[in-house]
This record gives sequence, C-alpha cells and structure tokens, in this order.
Amino acid sequence: MSKVSFKPNEDRILVEPAAAEEKTASGIIIPDTAKEKPQEGIVVAVGEGTTDKPVTVKVGDKVLYGKYSGTELSLGGTEYLIMRNSDVFGTL
Amino acid sequence: MSKVSFKPNEDRILVEPAAAEEKTASGIIIPDTAKEKPQEGIVVAVGEGTTDKPVTVKVGDKVLYGKYSGTELSLGGTEYLIMRNSDVFGTL
Amino acid sequence: MSKVSFKPNEDRILVEPAAAEEKTASGIIIPDTAKEKPQEGIVVAVGEGTTDKPVTVKVGDKVLYGKYSGTELSLGGTEYLIMRNSDVFGTL
Amino acid sequence: MSKVSFKPNEDRILVEPAAAEEKTASGIIIPDTAKEKPQEGIVVAVGEGTTDKPVTVKVGDKVLYGKYSGTELSLGGTEYLIMRNSDVFGTL
Amino acid sequence: MSKVSFKPNEDRILVEPAAAEEKTASGIIIPDTAKEKPQEGIVVAVGEGTTDKPVTVKVGDKVLYGKYSGTELSLGGTEYLIMRNSDVFGTL
Amino acid sequence: MSKVSFKPNEDRILVEPAAAEEKTASGIIIPDTAKEKPQEGIVVAVGEGTTDKPVTVKVGDKVLYGKYSGTELSLGGTEYLIMRNSDVFGTL
Amino acid sequence: MSKVSFKPNEDRILVEPAAAEEKTASGIIIPDTAKEKPQEGIVVAVGEGTTDKPVTVKVGDKVLYGKYSGTELSLGGTEYLIMRNSDVFGTL
Repeated sequence: MSKVSFKPNEDRILVEPAAAEEKTASGIIIPDTAKEKPQEGIVVAVGEGTTDKPVTVKVGDKVLYGKYSGTELSLGGTEYLIMRNSDVFGTL
Repeated sequence: MSKVSFKPNEDRILVEPAAAEEKTASGIIIPDTAKEKPQEGIVVAVGEGTTDKPVTVKVGDKVLYGKYSGTELSLGGTEYLIMRNSDVFGTL
Repeated sequence: MSKVSFKPNEDRILVEPAAAEEKTASGIIIPDTAKEKPQEGIVVAVGEGTTDKPVTVKVGDKVLYGKYSGTELSLGGTEYLIMRNSDVFGTL
Repeated sequence: MSKVSFKPNEDRILVEPAAAEEKTASGIIIPDTAKEKPQEGIVVAVGEGTTDKPVTVKVGDKVLYGKYSGTELSLGGTEYLIMRNSDVFGTL
Repeated sequence: MSKVSFKPNEDRILVEPAAAEEKTASGIIIPDTAKEKPQEGIVVAVGEGTTDKPVTVKVGDKVLYGKYSGTELSLGGTEYLIMRNSDVFGTL
Repeated sequence: MSKVSFKPNEDRILVEPAAAEEKTASGIIIPDTAKEKPQEGIVVAVGEGTTDKPVTVKVGDKVLYGKYSGTELSLGGTEYLIMRNSDVFGTL
Repeated sequence: MSKVSFKPNEDRILVEPAAAEEKTASGIIIPDTAKEKPQEGIVVAVGEGTTDKPVTVKVGDKVLYGKYSGTELSLGGTEYLIMRNSDVFGTL
C-alpha cells in the first residue's frame, strides 16, 4: 500500500487497484490492452462523508468494486481510482 | 452454503445462486449457454444497511430475485451474486 | 386461494391471478396466446413494508392491477405475480 | 352517479367519466372513434391517501382532468377511470 | 376578470390569459394562427397548495408565465389555462 | 439599473443583462446576431424564495450566469432575464 | 494565486487551474489545442453552501477535479473555472 497525501472530498475514497497479472502461467507476457482490469484494490484515503452518505470503508480495507467504477487519478507516478463509497461492493 | 469472508457494503447482500440442473430428465447434458440462469439462491453475507435502506434478509435465507439482478463475483473459485437488498423479491 | 410459504420482501406483495376463461360462451377453446391476461387476483402474501412505503392490502384481498404489473413467479407449480403494493389500483 | 364497491389504493381515485354526446345538434350519430374523450367526470370512490400524497377530492365531486389521465377500468359493465388524486385539475 | 366556479386542485391555479391583439397598428386583422400566444394573464382561482408546494399567487394577480405553461381549459365558453403555481414567473 | 414593478415568483430573480458592445474598437458596428450574448447583469427584483430554495442574491447585485440561463422577458420596452436563484454563478 | 473579487453562489467554488506546460522537455512549443486540459487548480473563492450542500474546500486548497467539470469564467483577464463543491475529487 502506497503512502499518499490526498484527501478525498465528501463521500469519495481513493483506491489503489491490485496489480493485474502481466504473465500467464506459461510465462507469456500479456500486452497491456489484453490485461483484465482489476476489480480489487486497497483503500488508501477516505473522505469525511456527508450527512446522507457516510463513508463506510477504512484506509487499508481490501475492497471489490465494479469494472467501470471510479475515475483514474495519477498521483506521484502511481495510478489510483477515486470513487464514491457506495461504488464499493464490499470488503474482503 | 459456502463459507465466505466477504462483508457486503451498505445495503448490499451476497447470494450464492442455486446450481442449475446440468442434465435433463433423460440424461442429456445441457451445454452451458442453454442452462436457464437460476433465480433462487442462499444469502451468504449481508451489509449493515443504511438509514434509508435497511437490510431485511438474513444469512441463510433462501431468496428469489430477478433474472438480471446483481453482479457476478468470484470468491475463492465460487460464483456469487452481489445485489442490493431491495432486489430480493422475497424469501422461501 | 392457494397456500404458499413465501414472504415478499419490503413493500412487495404476492398475487394469485384469477384464472382466465379458457372457453368462449359457445364452447370454443381459446388457445393460450389468445387469452387476455387477467388483471384481477387474490393477495396471497404481503411484505412488511418500508417506512416510506407501507403495505396497504391484506392477504385475501381481491385486487385489480395493471396489465403489465409485477413479475411472474412459479412456486410449487402455481403461477403468481410478485408486485409492489403501489401497483395495486384498488380492492374489490 | 353509479354505485360501486371498489376501494382505490393509496392516493388513487375512481372517476366515472361524463357521457360523451353521441349525436350532433342536427341528429347525426357520431361513430365511436370520432367521439371526443370526455375530460369531466364524477368521483365515485377515493383511496385513503399516503403521508406525502393526501387525497383532496371527495366522492361526488365533479372533476376535470387531462385527456390522457388514468387507466380504464370496467366494473360491473360500467367504464371508469382509475387515476391519481394529483391528476385532477380541479373541481367544478 | 371573469367569474368562475372552479376550484383548482393542490398547487394548481386557473389563469385567464390576456386577449391577444387582433389588429395590427395599421388595422390589419391578424389571422388566428399568426397571433402570438399571450404570456400574461389574471389569476381567477387558486388551489389550497400542498405542504411542499404552497400557492404563492392570489386571485386577481396579473401574472407572467412561459409560452408553453399550463393546459387549456374551457369553462362556460371562456378559455382558461390551468397551471402549477411554480409555472408563474412573477406578478406585475 | 432600471426601475421595474415586477415581483418574481418563488426562488426566481429578475436580471437586467449588461449591454453588449455594439461597436468594435475600430468603430465597426456589430450586427445583432454577431453580438455575444452577455453573461453579466444586475439583479433588479427577487422572489421570496421557498423553504428549500432561499434566494441568496440581492437587488443591485452584479451577477454572472450561464449563457443559456433564464427566459427573456420584456417589461416596459426593456429586455430582462427571469431565472432561478441557483442559475447565478456568483456576484462581482 | 490571483486576487479576485468574486463571491460564488450557493455551493459553488471558483478555481484557478494550474497552468498547462507550454513547452515540451525538448523545447517544442505545444499549440493550444494540443495542450492537455489541467485537472489541478487552486481554490480562489468559495460560496456559503446550502443546507444540503455545504462547501467543504477552503480558499487556497489545491484541488483535483474531472476533465469536464465547471464552466470557464474570465475575470480581469484571468481564466477561472466555476464549479460545484461536489465536483472536487479531493485536495492535495
């Protein structure tokens, strides 16, 4: 889990997606576009939530989320996803 | 009912669909695409609900739900459905 | 009215549609696709309602509802309709 | 105003539309499809309303409503309209 | 301002549109379809409003409203517009 | 700022748009359709607001608003815009 | 950070976008249309918020926001973005 000085706004959370496998079992390197987008990640920062929409996940939580959830955000060379708390399906 | 260490978020529930019949009465094996998607399952995990949307089903409940409800989620090799509590039609 | 062990979720109700006439007055048998879908039925099970949407019909009520209301649900060989309480136009 | 044993659900009301003129002033009979749909009727039954949507018209009120308001409902051979209380423009 | 015995429902108001000019300054009679629809009128009846939507105009108010606001309503040979209170831009 | 006897309804405000420049720096007269629609104006009248939508600008405020905000309204020969309070981006 | 005498309305904030690089590392000047729109900026003014939508960022905050957030606003020759508080992903 990377360190990051970013404070998500309202009910948003910042997620570091799990790295997608870059080799198949037999050692074939998968080109970038063929890699399945990961749907699992670690929460690295959370907003304070709103009255209606409290944040229910914590920093460090391993979360699952939909394939098209969130917006990609590059911070210090690392790719994150910024998404709403309610985009999270649940925690592992 | 499988064991699973997954905590659904907000008003979501995790459902293990009932296995679809893989043979007809006369023993013919049905190819995968011809099997009717099951609409019956067992609740294996529930979220804590939200103020507006409490979770009304319990772990172990046998539930019926719509053909297109939920999102498929693979956990430890088993296929589950993650859905909203209100996607459940009712309990058997 | 059939017996059924099904508990509708939230503000849903389970309705057993009235049987459509299968013969015309002159005794001609109507093929299945020509039968008009009944819009009258008996409530056989009701959910507990939600804070915003209480259930206002009771088991045993004879209800009228729209032609396209509800989802068909087969329980123990009988065809029911599962619908929202507010889909009911009124009770006879 | 006809007698009818039907209890509208929630904020719905049952309206008996005023009969459309079937002859012109000169005595020509108007075929059914040429008759203008009446937009005036008598309230014959009202629901109990909901917390958010109380019923504001009473049985016996002569109401005006939009050309496409409500759903036709046949009860005991008479054609009624079942509509929401808020579909009523006002009372004469 | 005409007398009218009509009680608008909920947050509706009844407006008598100002007569459109039927002659140009030079005395040319404007055919009906060329007359610009008036957007000014007099409130002739008001509903009691709802909890969320109180009626803020009074009988006798000269109001301005949008070109496509309201529904035409003929009462005793006079053409009125029935509209929602919030369709009114303001009072002159 | 013009005088105007018009009371906007609910959360509406009346704005007098700033005059668009009719000549370029070199004295060329700009034809009407080529003039950029002004997005700056002076508030000349405000409604009383509603419970949910209070009016936050005052008469005399110089406001900025979106190019397509409001409806044109001609009062006593002057062109105004009637818009919702929330259409205002802010005050200068 | 520029000085600006502009008060955003309701839950809006005024953001000064970070300047996009106008030269590549090798000194090639990038034509205007090829410059990537910046998604990072400094909050230069904030509204007072509404009951439902309080403003959660402060003047001086370095914020990240979506590529298509806000409306461009030119004040005193500087280009700003006026956006809703909730358009902000978070603060750096």
